[in-house]
Amino acid sequence: FFPRKAIDVPFPQAIPLLPNILEEYCIGCKACQQACGDRDAIDFEQDSEIVNLNVGSIIVATGLKTFDPALMGEYNYLKYPDVITTMQMERLLNNDGPTHGKIIRPSNGKHPRKISFILCVGSRNKQIHREYCSQTCCNVSIKQAVLIKKEYPDTVINIYYNDIRAIGKNCEEFYNRAREAFGIRFIKSNISAVVKSDTTEELLVRGEDVVEDSIFENKSELVVLAVGIEPAKGTDELSKVLNVSLDPYGFLLEKHLKVKPSETTLNGIYLAGAIQGPKDIPSSIAQAESAAAKAISLIAKGKVELDPHIVYLDQEKCDLCRLCLDTCIYSALNIEGGKLEIIKANCSGCGACAAMCHSDALYVPGFTKNQISVQIQSILKQKSEYPLIIAFLCNWCSYVG
Amino acid sequence: FFPRKAIDVPFPQAIPLLPNILEEYCIGCKACQQACGDRDAIDFEQDSEIVNLNVGSIIVATGLKTFDPALMGEYNYLKYPDVITTMQMERLLNNDGPTHGKIIRPSNGKHPRKISFILCVGSRNKQIHREYCSQTCCNVSIKQAVLIKKEYPDTVINIYYNDIRAIGKNCEEFYNRAREAFGIRFIKSNISAVVKSDTTEELLVRGEDVVEDSIFENKSELVVLAVGIEPAKGTDELSKVLNVSLDPYGFLLEKHLKVKPSETTLNGIYLAGAIQGPKDIPSSIAQAESAAAKAISLIAKGKVELDPHIVYLDQEKCDLCRLCLDTCIYSALNIEGGKLEIIKANCSGCGACAAMCHSDALYVPGFTKNQISVQIQSILKQKSEYPLIIAFLCNWCSYVG
Repeated sequence: FFPRKAIDVPFPQAIPLLPNILEEYCIGCKACQQACGDRDAIDFEQDSEIVNLNVGSIIVATGLKTFDPALMGEYNYLKYPDVITTMQMERLLNNDGPTHGKIIRPSNGKHPRKISFILCVGSRNKQIHREYCSQTCCNVSIKQAVLIKKEYPDTVINIYYNDIRAIGKNCEEFYNRAREAFGIRFIKSNISAVVKSDTTEELLVRGEDVVEDSIFENKSELVVLAVGIEPAKGTDELSKVLNVSLDPYGFLLEKHLKVKPSETTLNGIYLAGAIQGPKDIPSSIAQAESAAAKAISLIAKGKVELDPHIVYLDQEKCDLCRLCLDTCIYSALNIEGGKLEIIKANCSGCGACAAMCHSDALYVPGFTKNQISVQIQSILKQKSEYPLIIAFLCNWCSYVG
Repeated sequence: FFPRKAIDVPFPQAIPLLPNILEEYCIGCKACQQACGDRDAIDFEQDSEIVNLNVGSIIVATGLKTFDPALMGEYNYLKYPDVITTMQMERLLNNDGPTHGKIIRPSNGKHPRKISFILCVGSRNKQIHREYCSQTCCNVSIKQAVLIKKEYPDTVINIYYNDIRAIGKNCEEFYNRAREAFGIRFIKSNISAVVKSDTTEELLVRGEDVVEDSIFENKSELVVLAVGIEPAKGTDELSKVLNVSLDPYGFLLEKHLKVKPSETTLNGIYLAGAIQGPKDIPSSIAQAESAAAKAISLIAKGKVELDPHIVYLDQEKCDLCRLCLDTCIYSALNIEGGKLEIIKANCSGCGACAAMCHSDALYVPGFTKNQISVQIQSILKQKSEYPLIIAFLCNWCSYVG
């Protein structure tokens, strides 16, 4: 969006507050190394390395990326420089940003007098497989609009929305102030396109005003797309490494949506922040503190109590067919010295291997064929309804289901 | 709403699952005591008592009450039995509730074929001093409407809303299912009144459809008011006992809205759930786990580190005027044996007593008149701008401000 140098501090609030080399810009002249002199803080020999750590628990807080609006042609993002995202507006508004807080049109550097915010870009949209609400974009847009109005009271700001979701304490009041004290216009609408005017330098926002029931084409000098939240890059791979499932949109799946939002089905792996689903800062912090508490309490005990529902092995029945090895995603099975062994600490008791075992060598106590058959017989003796429905529900997810 | 007995279990999921005597119904016949016999579990001599506990930290999780819609005459709540609240609908929907899950019109016990939900009753309304959004009523209403539709697919359900705030993971998808799979109608509207039809047993919901731009009067056999969230009864008194401030709507004030939502300005007092502001179950649980972590970490240390910014006393200057005693709301000052003493563990360093002290006997190091005067002089030497504005900002709240 705005040029950066080959070596710089990413932004003045960065943590840690240290300069980075941007590999894609660096030409390797090593002038920086010379300038650094005796401090010797720059090491061009440094390479990526894989570090192995033994840890007692893991908190996954890998965060989010924002939706790429170039995927939706109608907004002409990237084509018109004056169509930007809320993330880019955040950079413009930052006193330490590239424009030192000045709001400009990237196309000509001039101050825009009419600014449009388009909400739900990449959210609440089934057609692009992002049905979920990103929870934060309404508030972000209102905040940015108010900041602009404070600096440039004459700016005309239109916010095109579906529903205004002022989520969180004090946010409804802030939304009201935005309308009443700052005169920001909120228009319930469906936007069809952002195009360039044939005659002027302006952009045209086309859409349907749902309340007025009319089609409009509003002039705008800067269009801000309130882009939605997606799981961080690499969450797919992370999910496989950790054996934590993904939800339909690629966020990591919590143990229970309502009562265990910071846990996963794996004891010792916890979630914090937007990796579990879009959320704002206060919710992320509360969840992070919850995850930290659970991680500490697991480690502080000094020993781990295992769920007794793990798989057991009848060594004599096992014919070493190895089918179970491929089934287990928890690395809980191993063949050593011509014998199958169960690594109890890894076994989650999911029973996938037992279901696969053709010789009944693997079994989960309480869930053997015999036991289930006896349970059914016992129920049939007590109940006489017809038709009788007997359901065997999952230990982990039937309550959610 | 529905009659209860003088002694019963409040509801089948109550915790603890024990019967209570309802004092307002009990006539004191003591038949229950006789029936209980040798177990001797009922004691009519039992009286309220005040229990003193020494505790290391306090988590305030006193929860919420719902808005009383009788305060808004236009809904005719209490006047018409078929106008109920979402809390009452929850009782009707409960399989263990008074109707065993059957949805009925309280007026005649018949099944309603047309049901209306009115959202934002007691929320987002400045006129009744409840400007805030209650964060949960949209989702509660959608859930109840879907449950009704599952049992009675022929019911016509209208939901009258301002904005649909499907807050939380998976809630947007649920909202879409409610419209698309269950055919529940959502009408963006302003409701002016609920009145009774002159000719039939039905209720009439009057309002303005914002999208269609028309005035309507829709028939309904049951009207459900989605009542907002308020702080629990007695929060006023609790606030005074704990010295934790209230926000403008009577919820307890957190230390920092964004980064410390589960803390208060008092070290050792933490907040969880709706007492800090309206929130849903997952957010309440995450906040509760965060509060628990902080409470444990404070106690686990075995000792408490105090902020050095507390008030100090120059004994010689003190003339025992006692003005400071009334000023201190933290019980940190005491006169014993003709001498003023500071109870350091109680002092919050607020400086109110120092400001009140006419003989300069009380002072907060770093903030004495002399030190502040020297700071100003030193700034004046360095800065030459005119006009120069020097601000002394609050240690606790200036960042929020």
